[in-house]
Parts: sequence; structure tokens; C-alpha cells
Amino acid sequence: MKNTAQNWFRELRDAICAEFEKIEQESSSAAKFERKKWERAEGGGGEMSLMRGKIFEKVGVNISTVHGEFSEKFLREMENPPEDARFWASGISLVAHMSNPHVPAVHMNTRMIITGEGKKQWFGGGTDLTPMFDDLESADFFHKNLRECCERHNSTYYDKYKKWCDEYFFLPHRNEPRGIGGIFYDYLNSNDWDADFAFTQDVGRTFLNTYPQIVRNNRERKWNDKEREQQLYKRGRYVEFNLLHDRGTKFGLLTGGNTEAILMSLPPEVKW
Amino acid sequence: MKNTAQNWFRELRDAICAEFEKIEQESSSAAKFERKKWERAEGGGGEMSLMRGKIFEKVGVNISTVHGEFSEKFLREMENPPEDARFWASGISLVAHMSNPHVPAVHMNTRMIITGEGKKQWFGGGTDLTPMFDDLESADFFHKNLRECCERHNSTYYDKYKKWCDEYFFLPHRNEPRGIGGIFYDYLNSNDWDADFAFTQDVGRTFLNTYPQIVRNNRERKWNDKEREQQLYKRGRYVEFNLLHDRGTKFGLLTGGNTEAILMSLPPEVKW
Repeated sequence: MKNTAQNWFRELRDAICAEFEKIEQESSSAAKFERKKWERAEGGGGEMSLMRGKIFEKVGVNISTVHGEFSEKFLREMENPPEDARFWASGISLVAHMSNPHVPAVHMNTRMIITGEGKKQWFGGGTDLTPMFDDLESADFFHKNLRECCERHNSTYYDKYKKWCDEYFFLPHRNEPRGIGGIFYDYLNSNDWDADFAFTQDVGRTFLNTYPQIVRNNRERKWNDKEREQQLYKRGRYVEFNLLHDRGTKFGLLTGGNTEAILMSLPPEVKW
Repeated sequence: MKNTAQNWFRELRDAICAEFEKIEQESSSAAKFERKKWERAEGGGGEMSLMRGKIFEKVGVNISTVHGEFSEKFLREMENPPEDARFWASGISLVAHMSNPHVPAVHMNTRMIITGEGKKQWFGGGTDLTPMFDDLESADFFHKNLRECCERHNSTYYDKYKKWCDEYFFLPHRNEPRGIGGIFYDYLNSNDWDADFAFTQDVGRTFLNTYPQIVRNNRERKWNDKEREQQLYKRGRYVEFNLLHDRGTKFGLLTGGNTEAILMSLPPEVKW
């Protein structure tokens, strides 16, 4: 199961990177992802892929498979700390910040986690979209595809995971949502590993069939300096969320993950 | 004592803002601080002063006096939580991000805190300098003046507070210091309120006699695009420190402080 999940995350990474490079090519850009491997002292490692292109101002796609023991500090911060601190985790994580303010930013992440040498195992992940301005067309298309994805697996998933996403990607100190949401799930273990894995795969495939189309729909739209400014300020909120609130960022930094990979999510240029 | 401290922080704010505006005028800039009052639902409030000038790309000087009860969540995160959660706090906090990459950024903050209706009382604060490149002249001048300030009050302060500053303003996830340090002190209560207050005042006055001179020494230096880029990336570390690690930021956001005032410390423009 570990190998199957890990191979899938890599395969998905390859497909996404190829599609994003294709979008660059369609705009006469030769931008390519740069790959960089890293190893974790305690065990495992990962591979970062970073592209700074014409359409994708900055996009990072990371895969990693790590194992070890949760630190005391991390266990204290967990909502439901496991009795056995040993863990194994594998996943893919992606954030794209776009040159054109009319193309929404996006985040996608899926992961499989095991604690206590197999005593507990679950999947988690999701994807959420952050348009810089009201963009009902992109929002509706994104939500529609995620709804269909969820409904292929379980009729209760969509409402539950959409709500979870709205609650999670929220900045309490600003009383603002990060974007227009999407889905977020965690601790998914229905006692049917194949089904949970199939859902996790479908989230990745749905992302791959949805976000590139949103990019293609909007990449030709003209923008002015004022819209660029608004984009840079909106990105400030993204930074605030990731550094103040995001569990994945904390998980990574507190479990000795690779700082460069974890903070690859930060936007290329920001204003406050 | 509350009134005396509170009045001092306001007086220091006025003196600093006047001096920074004078620096702008010396460069034919008419930039002025904009003042904005805010009130805190639970009790107290503050005043923000923000200037976006020619020399000071963005500088915020905040004073606030707040009171109430520490939340459960905040108490759990404190190193030495007080038995009685009631608190009163007054202080001044300043961060300056400069247009010229050859002028270091700076932070200064001093505060008086009371918990449990007077059962415990202490002062805290400090100042630290963040040059964008090696700048031994500014660093030496800054350290020298702080050393002399400390030595006017207690022969043990400088070494202790310089070390505390180096330890505090450190980014473990980058294994990098934030800048070249300065002094940092907290929980200062020598059983002589007058002496502790006099030291806290001297830290403010020393800042006022030191940083403006560093600005004047460096403001005419030429810079190129590459140096500006380095400044924008260096500022990213400032953001990471403030949002991931800074206790003042967490204290403010978790005690219902004013978000706009707390995050005024974030740089005007940043790159990652």
C-alpha cells in the first residue's frame, strides 16, 4: 500500500508538470520545471519541482515520503495525538501563483499517513482556488467538477469536504476566507483502503482536468497596474494563512521537513 | 505607574515620528505619518502611525494600552502562564522598512505588563537591526550605543540581553539570524520599578539617538536592481520570522489585538 500510494503521487506529479509545461509552450514559453531532490536526516526525503514561467509566475510541485517519530512539541500541538509517535507519510503538494491577475491561484495536496507502525492509517488532502477578484465562472466550474468527483465515491463527501475546506482556509485574524474554497478532507479511513485510495487518486485527476482549463480560459485576459497591485496584496493574505495557520506548513517545519520545499508555496512577489 | 509608563510610550512615539518626518523633509519629501486610533472590544485600544515615504518605504509606529484576560489558548502557549489570567499591557512597537537597500531595516519595542491585578509586573522590549548586506559600520555603531545604554543601568544587562536577542531573532527553519541583533529583554522586574522604567526609557532614547544616524549615514548610497532584489528576498525572511515565530505577533493576534496594527510590521514589497 505504501508503494502503491507513493508511486501514484509521483505519477500524478509527472502528469501535472507535463501539463503545466504544455500550457507554457502554448504561450511560446520554453519554461520547464527544475527538479531538486532532498533527503531528510531522520528518514526519507522528497523531490521539489519549481517552474518560474510566463503564465505560471511561480509554481511548486513537491512529492515526499518521510518517516520517523513525531517530536514532543509536535505531539502537543496535535488535536488527536497518536499513542505511538512513529509515523510514515507520503504525498504530493502543489501551489501555483499566476502572472495574470485574472487567473486564480490554486493549491492541491493529497497524502497518505500511517502512525504507530500501521496501527492507524488515513488519507487526507484537497484543493482550493483563490481568484484575485470575483470570478463566478471559474468558481462554478471548479466546484462543479469537485462535486462530481466526490459523488463518484460517496454521496456524503461533497457537502462535508466543501464545508471543511471553507472552515479550514479561513483567516480568523482578517475575518476573510482565503479564496472560494474547494474540498478538504483528513483522517479518511473507511475501512476500505482501495476505495479511499481511489478517491484520493480521483481528487488528483480531477484537479488535472480542471485547473488547466481555468488557466486556458483566462490567460489571454488583459490586466492593468491596479489589478496587478490588487493581486500582490491578495497574495499577502496567502502568505499570512500559510505561515500563521496552515497545518501542513507547521507539520513540515516541526517534523524536520525540507524548508525550501515547504515554503515553495510562498508567492513570488507580494505587497503589504 | 500605569499612567507614567503609558505617557512615556506616547511621548516616545511622538519624538520618533517627528524625527522620521524630519529625515523625509531633508530629502525633499513631504511624507507624514497617518494616525489611526482603534479600540479593543474587551478593553483598551491603541493608535497606529504609518508613513510610506521616500526614505522610509514603510514604517509603522504603534502604541497601545490593553487589558482583559488571557484566553485559554494563549495561556496554553505561554512558557510561564500566570495563575491569574487578568492582564494589563502598554507599549510601543516600531518596524521600519527602507527604500534604499543600503539602509538597514529596524525593529524597536518596549512594553510594561501587569498580570493578576498587580501580582506580577515587568518590563520587556529591545531593538534589533537588519542590514540587507554586510554593514560593519552600522552594526558596530548600533551595538556600541546599546552597550553604553545597558551599562548606564546594570553591568550585567548588555551581555545577557545581547545574547537573548541573538537567540530570539533567529529563524530555526532557515538556520539564519534575522539580522545582526541588538538587545532583547523580558520579565524585567528588579524590585525597583523606577530603575526598570528608567532603563526602558533609555532603550527608547538610545534608539532615537542611533537609528536616525544610521539612516542619515547611508541614505545617499547608490543601489542597483540586483541589490534591490536581494533586499526583497531578505525581507521574505522578515515575514517568515514575524508570522512563524514572533511572540509579539502571536500575543497580539491571540489576545484580540488589532490585526492591522500587528501586521503593520510586514514589509511593503517582498519576493520569494
